[in-house]
Amino acid sequence: MEVRNFAMLLQTHCTLDFDIEVPTPFLLMLRPRSGAQQWVALEEYRLEPRVPVFEYTDNYGNLCQRLVAPQGAFKIATSAEVMTADRVDEAPGAPFIAVQNLPDAVLDYLLPSRYCESDRFNDMATDITANCRPGYDQVAAIVSWLRDNISYRPGSSNVAISAAEASSRRVGVCRDLAHIGIALCRSLSIPARMVVGYLYGLVPMDLHAWFEAYVGGRWYTFDATQPKLHAGYVSVGYGRDAADVAVYSQFGPIVYPKGQTVSVEDLRA
Amino acid sequence: MEVRNFAMLLQTHCTLDFDIEVPTPFLLMLRPRSGAQQWVALEEYRLEPRVPVFEYTDNYGNLCQRLVAPQGAFKIATSAEVMTADRVDEAPGAPFIAVQNLPDAVLDYLLPSRYCESDRFNDMATDITANCRPGYDQVAAIVSWLRDNISYRPGSSNVAISAAEASSRRVGVCRDLAHIGIALCRSLSIPARMVVGYLYGLVPMDLHAWFEAYVGGRWYTFDATQPKLHAGYVSVGYGRDAADVAVYSQFGPIVYPKGQTVSVEDLRA
Amino acid sequence: MEVRNFAMLLQTHCTLDFDIEVPTPFLLMLRPRSGAQQWVALEEYRLEPRVPVFEYTDNYGNLCQRLVAPQGAFKIATSAEVMTADRVDEAPGAPFIAVQNLPDAVLDYLLPSRYCESDRFNDMATDITANCRPGYDQVAAIVSWLRDNISYRPGSSNVAISAAEASSRRVGVCRDLAHIGIALCRSLSIPARMVVGYLYGLVPMDLHAWFEAYVGGRWYTFDATQPKLHAGYVSVGYGRDAADVAVYSQFGPIVYPKGQTVSVEDLRA
Amino acid sequence: MEVRNFAMLLQTHCTLDFDIEVPTPFLLMLRPRSGAQQWVALEEYRLEPRVPVFEYTDNYGNLCQRLVAPQGAFKIATSAEVMTADRVDEAPGAPFIAVQNLPDAVLDYLLPSRYCESDRFNDMATDITANCRPGYDQVAAIVSWLRDNISYRPGSSNVAISAAEASSRRVGVCRDLAHIGIALCRSLSIPARMVVGYLYGLVPMDLHAWFEAYVGGRWYTFDATQPKLHAGYVSVGYGRDAADVAVYSQFGPIVYPKGQTVSVEDLRA
Repeated sequence: MEVRNFAMLLQTHCTLDFDIEVPTPFLLMLRPRSGAQQWVALEEYRLEPRVPVFEYTDNYGNLCQRLVAPQGAFKIATSAEVMTADRVDEAPGAPFIAVQNLPDAVLDYLLPSRYCESDRFNDMATDITANCRPGYDQVAAIVSWLRDNISYRPGSSNVAISAAEASSRRVGVCRDLAHIGIALCRSLSIPARMVVGYLYGLVPMDLHAWFEAYVGGRWYTFDATQPKLHAGYVSVGYGRDAADVAVYSQFGPIVYPKGQTVSVEDLRA
Repeated sequence: MEVRNFAMLLQTHCTLDFDIEVPTPFLLMLRPRSGAQQWVALEEYRLEPRVPVFEYTDNYGNLCQRLVAPQGAFKIATSAEVMTADRVDEAPGAPFIAVQNLPDAVLDYLLPSRYCESDRFNDMATDITANCRPGYDQVAAIVSWLRDNISYRPGSSNVAISAAEASSRRVGVCRDLAHIGIALCRSLSIPARMVVGYLYGLVPMDLHAWFEAYVGGRWYTFDATQPKLHAGYVSVGYGRDAADVAVYSQFGPIVYPKGQTVSVEDLRA
Repeated sequence: MEVRNFAMLLQTHCTLDFDIEVPTPFLLMLRPRSGAQQWVALEEYRLEPRVPVFEYTDNYGNLCQRLVAPQGAFKIATSAEVMTADRVDEAPGAPFIAVQNLPDAVLDYLLPSRYCESDRFNDMATDITANCRPGYDQVAAIVSWLRDNISYRPGSSNVAISAAEASSRRVGVCRDLAHIGIALCRSLSIPARMVVGYLYGLVPMDLHAWFEAYVGGRWYTFDATQPKLHAGYVSVGYGRDAADVAVYSQFGPIVYPKGQTVSVEDLRA
Repeated sequence: MEVRNFAMLLQTHCTLDFDIEVPTPFLLMLRPRSGAQQWVALEEYRLEPRVPVFEYTDNYGNLCQRLVAPQGAFKIATSAEVMTADRVDEAPGAPFIAVQNLPDAVLDYLLPSRYCESDRFNDMATDITANCRPGYDQVAAIVSWLRDNISYRPGSSNVAISAAEASSRRVGVCRDLAHIGIALCRSLSIPARMVVGYLYGLVPMDLHAWFEAYVGGRWYTFDATQPKLHAGYVSVGYGRDAADVAVYSQFGPIVYPKGQTVSVEDLRA
């Protein structure tokens, strides 16, 4: 339990408005958890109309909610006040951890997954990281490569696109850049996982996705969509890739939200 | 996922004020979780001064917080708006579930624990439940017996008292009555667990403890401190007995809170 | 805990021989677990040379082994005597369980995964199961369709092939048929998972893969590689798809076994 | 993953013979697990008559078996070949880990439990460890104190005796010495847990119990029943105290085994 400052205080909001035609089961992942990186000082999670809702913890430790959205207008409104550090840790030189020395709990993040076909990225990863010290510097080189080679363009992609496809298209949304980064890391035997949540100052403001890599004995944050790492991340969910961390999954006829708002404010201001 | 009404909306508050002489590690259990019985619509958890705090999930699924309280005044202030049903389920006649048919996850609640020496309660339990159908009715008989034979007197006990001791003294606080009830259930091979949290209308108002027994395929609520079951329970933690569900555990020189306030209001009023 | 006969007694063997050029970390999944479907009465797991090996349980409950294979000849020899039922349960008419009524623990098996892009199989699944009662009968129709439309041909595929690719090729090995079956089930909101292990009487004898679907409140076994279901399955690992249940995963330069033997005998004979 | 030698190869046997009057549910804990300390190279677990048996993993990671013993003679026969190190690690000077720096997973082992009323041992622990460096040396002092002050006498105790009681009686069996050691460690904020299993060379041979304490960042083995630590431990179960690690728990009328054999051989001999 490293001593951390929690000097930043962010207020997040996310609302989703649906118009439901037939009662539809939803799985939601919209409750940020307090943990090593952030402290949730205040949180609100309202449903209109009030329907029965059940919460459970998934395999990755996320707090997930289950409900059946009733016919008609259905609104989910969440907000939180989250304390977090005012800078993101970086660790150039942090070493690669050999597979045999990784904790059991991170091994799962070495394997290929739905959107991160890491088994197909070996050659690309080897090229990109050719002259790097194994570990943090390899991941940093991957992020630089992503910034230089894959255009970050909100709205340019869709949910069926995987890392292999996105890397051919050379353009993508935040989740695509995260997927490629994760696939490249795993192909080098560096555990990597996807994070969804909020980023203060994101333009255009929306829910966001980035990734973490496990080097030097802990998880570090990486985000190729931003020119450089800055503070302001609030995590909502962790997983192997976007399949694990959908903010909402529905079953039955597809219903898109007719309205969605996201905002992040700095309460110190 | 049974359809439940969440017709009641309760607001809970709990504050703890400490005067800390040497920096002291604390484990806290003060964050109610949404689950099958309740939905946390709003929640606040503030620390003064702001110290780093880490959250984790224990073996029983409780959200726990770890921190080191610094020297000087230290205040913890929590509040929540919780939706819950407007009556507590009761199920006279719900059958005993034979050990071989219990889910793996409840077996732990059959074993004796620090404050529930169920291995010593066989004869008493057999006497109390002599003419009952096995299952819910046995637990109901245990609760009736507790109401008639163990005086519920807030302030009459202390944290070192176990079920065996409390049943000799014939008087106790809420946790003592819960411990005896749990020990009696387990001695009949009925899984039983302790719950801590809030109860609307409790006199005098304070944090509360009650118990749940597993019969008829699910957990049911029991509380011998009240003349009859009424709605208004908000759960904060589950465990085998009070050792697992301390609202705060500290390590090092003992520090008692110099102030503590608890309140529960009905927001529908 | 349903009463089951364990009338069949099978002996399984699997040996793997490697010629290692540089010390190589391995994750292995070669220890069958006793559970609801089988009882491991005898088990042997030998390594030559004897190297340090660590065992852990993964997210899916599998017993996994970690080791670093040393330079030179390296041999893994496992065998087991396993008691299991002499017929596989089938349940025509067992109902579909609506998502909101599924246990939390099976929700993970509804999501797309590396080799089962269930998000792309909706139309195909709807066609195949057009006139079926929701539930077991849909899965049975999927298995019939697989038998009629995808040729089972050992040696015809490789580990990079996913369900989407295999369904275009119309031919595959056991894992491909399982992947397509799983993807089709999930696209209908039926949880489905991959199983690896042994099958008595398999021709040609090898390690095998099949799948399970969750209908009517429990998991049922399905296998499109066989003309009809017969007894003789011994499970070694469960997961979302082949990425989770590799019998061995290695990191670093790829090393193929230079020898592998698999056998299953019926000890009652 | 520290490199360990597994130079010792032990063969363990344990058989239990029961004469069952009414069908009786049992929970068993008789399957050693491979882990960091030992590798199970061969294992046998037979029941006569063959009854359905189900295996699950408890909260502490132990492999447990559930069955209903039928009326009449019932025999359980287990044996294993286990590789383990030829000496037990000792670490004089290994430091105390402050509570705030302990891994989440060991916090549970700080709390009082059924047979280890650590809340009552503060003064005794402080006296015994008065001049020790915090950490391993405190635990070593506790073990020395136990050797000098609590007589180890097989057959002198029974299963209802707790640490508080055993420390008054000044005599006990292996589990009593372990309980007192655990209670003393926990009262000093050192996590401690009970282990049951086998010890090569134990006189008289029987199932054995000892304890582990968490200092210097890992678990270390301690055993006050032996004049000094020597190799030859095979772990079968871990828990907070004897309530968690009963080799068998039964429900209903108590049935004692009419026969029990235990042996441990050194296969290198």
